[in-house]
Amino acid sequence: MPHIDLDVLPALARGCAVLGTGGGGAVEPGLRSAQRAVGQHGPVELLTLDALAPDDVIVPLSGIGAPTVSNEMIEGSHEVLRVRDEVERLTGRPVAAVMSSEIGGANGVHPVAWAARLGVPLLDADGMGRAFPEVQMVSMFAAGLSVNYVVLADVVGNVTTIRPINGEWSERIARAVCVAGGANALMADYVLTAQQARGAVIEGTVSRAISIGRATEDTEDPLAALTAALGARRFIDGKIVDVDRRTQGGFVRGSVVVEEAGGERMIRIELQNENLVVLEEGRVLASVPDLISILDTQTARAISTEMLRYGQRVTVLAWPCDPLWRTQRGLQIVGPAAFGYDLDFVPVEQGWVDA
Amino acid sequence: MPHIDLDVLPALARGCAVLGTGGGGAVEPGLRSAQRAVGQHGPVELLTLDALAPDDVIVPLSGIGAPTVSNEMIEGSHEVLRVRDEVERLTGRPVAAVMSSEIGGANGVHPVAWAARLGVPLLDADGMGRAFPEVQMVSMFAAGLSVNYVVLADVVGNVTTIRPINGEWSERIARAVCVAGGANALMADYVLTAQQARGAVIEGTVSRAISIGRATEDTEDPLAALTAALGARRFIDGKIVDVDRRTQGGFVRGSVVVEEAGGERMIRIELQNENLVVLEEGRVLASVPDLISILDTQTARAISTEMLRYGQRVTVLAWPCDPLWRTQRGLQIVGPAAFGYDLDFVPVEQGWVDA
Repeated sequence: MPHIDLDVLPALARGCAVLGTGGGGAVEPGLRSAQRAVGQHGPVELLTLDALAPDDVIVPLSGIGAPTVSNEMIEGSHEVLRVRDEVERLTGRPVAAVMSSEIGGANGVHPVAWAARLGVPLLDADGMGRAFPEVQMVSMFAAGLSVNYVVLADVVGNVTTIRPINGEWSERIARAVCVAGGANALMADYVLTAQQARGAVIEGTVSRAISIGRATEDTEDPLAALTAALGARRFIDGKIVDVDRRTQGGFVRGSVVVEEAGGERMIRIELQNENLVVLEEGRVLASVPDLISILDTQTARAISTEMLRYGQRVTVLAWPCDPLWRTQRGLQIVGPAAFGYDLDFVPVEQGWVDA
Repeated sequence: MPHIDLDVLPALARGCAVLGTGGGGAVEPGLRSAQRAVGQHGPVELLTLDALAPDDVIVPLSGIGAPTVSNEMIEGSHEVLRVRDEVERLTGRPVAAVMSSEIGGANGVHPVAWAARLGVPLLDADGMGRAFPEVQMVSMFAAGLSVNYVVLADVVGNVTTIRPINGEWSERIARAVCVAGGANALMADYVLTAQQARGAVIEGTVSRAISIGRATEDTEDPLAALTAALGARRFIDGKIVDVDRRTQGGFVRGSVVVEEAGGERMIRIELQNENLVVLEEGRVLASVPDLISILDTQTARAISTEMLRYGQRVTVLAWPCDPLWRTQRGLQIVGPAAFGYDLDFVPVEQGWVDA
């Protein structure tokens, strides 16, 4: 059985940063937390869904709250125990495995720490295949699983369980509880059995994040290696010539313009926490939920939306999302319209190409 | 066994208004809701604690939220069923009785409706013996019962269960959930067994509210009758000559000055949702947690803080609170200092008297 040990963690973190598509929070605090927990409790077993019995309980976990706060707070180790206790009280069964709700960004790395602290395996899957800004934007919701309950544990020690009527209400109440409890909490959302997880989670994303992270090791051309590993389209290599970014309603919004090195092409990337749309001369090259990454051209490291600066030398890649997000229901939840864009989803494979 | 039927309800509502000491919300919506539920489901049995077995489950209930919203909303009938289901899921036992968390104001009358809808008795007790503005200001907290959980059901259908580390956090998170769910919710707080309730609830307050309400019926001098029924001190009969009132931090704050009819005395009443302190020439006549009521001199009807107007002919009464509130711990939770006043509690019996 594969394990996640200290050697693997940096590659996992790099891969999660790429899958964060500009959002999902900085991976470094998650990496440090995972290193500490694995150092204390030993490597974490990485399980496939097949290895679980049908009624084994899987707990999808994520941090919810303001990244600026979570980056500065010393992570408590009791929250995950409290969430586990509450889930076991509610289900009447032991927790068999934890899962990342969101593989992109910090929430892709942190679950290694939580699994280590609980002494349970980590499922090789997640609920997004990338990062999204709102809690209802998960594959379990897209797959039509009914919302049962959401458990939140804050650093103070309060535990709150929400039985919402739907995913939107879940987001709204969870956000309010999170803010009341110090703007940061650990959340279990869509607790489910292995049987329910089939077709409702995005499988293989932890090992995919690791292999994405590893692709850029020991190579002369990390960007080429990464592009190949992702199966991505490479839209442009160039320089950031404009950054228009503001914080609004708790989200980073704006756009970035990249000018081709020595050329005349310019592309614009629209942002809302994540990179959402790539445009060239008004035409859509790629759009959410497909994954769009802005990377340092030299190192192939992903640059998060809040770290974009005028003059950076960057490469813009995009690649296909999980097929679940391209269904009608998937696009309703996370398509361009869900973010307020008046445009149809264009699969990145079919995006406009300059002939 | 005594029952609460349609004949008793108006007296209960009048008594709850007096015990509201200016706050607790207007009783009329609660009265209408109780009349509707008793009309549909029949009278509600009024139980003393003795009638319950030691491990019978009692559910203290109250409405939480902005009174202006609750007054305007059509009360849903499903909230109480959802709270009951959640409590039974958590305790693993059927609900034996409901109780008013707060006898003063609307929350004293509403529980009759909730008991009727659930088909369970109402306990002749409450958690305040009056009205207080915050959810941790209950006798169960003063008696040192540990907080187990708070269940909130909003009109939308969401149910949230909070396991707070203490009463203050319970208030903070419950308030946030309430605001997120439409500013109004039904709350079960300090669910307890009959055994735990001994010494931790204020007994006899429902029948006391009824007898207070009845005292003003069929009498030539309702105010004298009410004063006798309450065992109250009558501080002044006069006219409101000044009202200084503002809404601040979700609470009504300010003061009212009453000038004696044909005399020279003036007293000032300090307000924060409820009437909190009575002052004459800078000396304290009465202070929270003792009960202070401003009544229409003619009808002996209680006037709530938001209905006070210049020129009203009023009488100011005050009478002793339950002994639980006069303990050191009780005064820590609801004494003058808890409301920001830099003065010691003065029992109304010992308040300054003009010789």
